[in-house]
Amino acid sequence: MKTYFDCLPCFLSQALRAARIATDDEKKIKKVLDEVGMMLKDIPLENTPPETGRLVYRKISEITGNLDPYKKLKKESTKTALSLYPTLKDRVEKSDNRLLAAIKIAIAGNIIDFGANWNFDLKNDLVEILGKSFGICDYNRFKDRLDKADKILYLGDNAGECVFDRILIEEMKKPVIYVVRDKPVINDATYEDAVQAGIDKLANIISSGTDAPGTILKTCSSDFKNIYKESKFIISKGQGNYEALSNENHPIFFLLKAKCRVVADDLGVNEGDIILKEIDSYNI
Amino acid sequence: MKTYFDCLPCFLSQALRAARIATDDEKKIKKVLDEVGMMLKDIPLENTPPETGRLVYRKISEITGNLDPYKKLKKESTKTALSLYPTLKDRVEKSDNRLLAAIKIAIAGNIIDFGANWNFDLKNDLVEILGKSFGICDYNRFKDRLDKADKILYLGDNAGECVFDRILIEEMKKPVIYVVRDKPVINDATYEDAVQAGIDKLANIISSGTDAPGTILKTCSSDFKNIYKESKFIISKGQGNYEALSNENHPIFFLLKAKCRVVADDLGVNEGDIILKEIDSYNI
Repeated sequence: MKTYFDCLPCFLSQALRAARIATDDEKKIKKVLDEVGMMLKDIPLENTPPETGRLVYRKISEITGNLDPYKKLKKESTKTALSLYPTLKDRVEKSDNRLLAAIKIAIAGNIIDFGANWNFDLKNDLVEILGKSFGICDYNRFKDRLDKADKILYLGDNAGECVFDRILIEEMKKPVIYVVRDKPVINDATYEDAVQAGIDKLANIISSGTDAPGTILKTCSSDFKNIYKESKFIISKGQGNYEALSNENHPIFFLLKAKCRVVADDLGVNEGDIILKEIDSYNI
Repeated sequence: MKTYFDCLPCFLSQALRAARIATDDEKKIKKVLDEVGMMLKDIPLENTPPETGRLVYRKISEITGNLDPYKKLKKESTKTALSLYPTLKDRVEKSDNRLLAAIKIAIAGNIIDFGANWNFDLKNDLVEILGKSFGICDYNRFKDRLDKADKILYLGDNAGECVFDRILIEEMKKPVIYVVRDKPVINDATYEDAVQAGIDKLANIISSGTDAPGTILKTCSSDFKNIYKESKFIISKGQGNYEALSNENHPIFFLLKAKCRVVADDLGVNEGDIILKEIDSYNI
C-alpha cells in the first residue's frame, strides 16, 4: 500500500504519542515533533507507510535515547491477553466452527496497537469485535488452502496479540513458523514477546530481520526472504504487514482490523471492519 | 490558552482538510502539507492556537490561490441552520427557562465547525447536545450580569452558528453588537454570513478586524479594541475565541462545545462537554 496524504499528520500524531511514552523531557518531545515535521516533505509517497514508520520511530529512539519505549506496555498487554486465554479457548470449544472462531479471535487480538489506533480498551473492544460480522471474509478459500498446506508461515504483529495468534495456531494443527520483528518498534512483537505468549511451545519462532513496523521485504534478512519465497500458505497479521505486503504476488491471507480510514479505503471496507482477505493477486 | 504539543499534529490535519476543500490539485495539496510541516518547528508554544491557525490558513490560501475555500459550505450551513430555526424557536417557547434554553441552543450551534472537529452531523448532533447536561454552567452569574448590562458585545464564531446565536439574541432583549471576522478563515462567520442568518435585523454587526480564527486582540482593529475595552458584558462563542481570550482580564462569558481534548483539558472538563463559563479572572 502506498503512503496517502492522510498518513502524514498521522505520523506526527504517532511521533508525539511515542515520544511521550519514551521520555518525560518536554524539550526532547518538542525536538521529536520538530524533526518529524521537517521529515514529512521528504517522504516518498510511493513508499509503504511502515517504511516511513521505521524512520520516524528510529528518530524518536535517537532523540529520546529510549530504544524500547513500549517494553513495559508490551509486557502488560501480553499479561492481560494471557488472562483472557482460558475464556477465549472456551469460546472456540463452544463454537460450531472452531477454525472460524479461532480466526476471529486472532483478528480481535489485532486491537492491541499503540501505533495507528492506540485508544483501545482490550476487554470491551474484544466483546464488540467478537460479536461483529466480517467486512471481507475469504473463509472458504482460507480453509481450502489450509487443508492443502503442509506448513504455515505466520507473520506476527503486536505483543499481546501473539496470545490470540496462539489460539489460531492451535486450531490449524499444522507446523507453523511464527515471524517476529528483529528489534523493538512500537509495540510490535519481538522474540521475547512471542515466548512470553507461549508461542515457542507450538511454533518455530524466527525474526524477519526487520526493525520496521511491518514486513518490508527489502529490509528483511536473506534467511527470512528465502523462507518467505518458498512458503505456499502465509498468514499476515495486522495493518503494518498489510501495508507492507498488499501489492505482493504471493499466497498471503491478511487478517486484520481496519483501524484507520486510509487502510479501510484501500481495502474498500468501513473503518473498524474485521478482515480475512486473500491477497488480490491470488483472487484473479 | 497556549499552544499544546497536541495542537501541532492537529494543525497538519486541518491543513490537509482545508487544502482538499480549496483545490483538487494534488501537487498543491502536497505543497501545503510540506510547508505546514516545515512551519511547525517555528510555532511559539506561548502563542494561542488561533495565532498559528491564522498563519496556517493564510499559507493554504497562498498555495492554493483560493481565498475562501469554505464559501459554499458556509452558505449551506446557514441554509440548513435556517431550516431548523422554527423548531428551535418552538423549543424555547415550550421551555420552563427560555433564557437557559436559548443559551443551550446557541452553544449547540457551535457544532458547525470545519476546523478542529469537522466530522459533525448537524441534525443528529443537535438532538444529542440539546439533551446533554452542561460541563460548566455559570448560568446564575450570566443571568445576574445580563440583567445589569445595558448592552452586549457578542463575539460570533462560525457561519450557520449565527442562526443559533440569533435565538439567544432574541431572548436577551438588550442591544447587541455582533462581531464577525474581517476576512474569510475556515468557516468562521464574516459580515455576509451574519446577514444571511438574519442577525442584521437584531444587532449591529461589526468586524473585529482580524482574519484569524479567533479574536486575537493584537490582530484586531483599533475601533474594535475600543468597543471591547468599554464592554461590560461580553459573550464569546466557540473554541477559537476561547483560545484567544481565556487569559484576558475582562467580563467575558464563554459559550462553547469543548471539541478537542486539549481545550477540554484546559477547561477541566470532558471532551464533548458544553460550557457556559464566566472567565476565571472574574470568578475570583
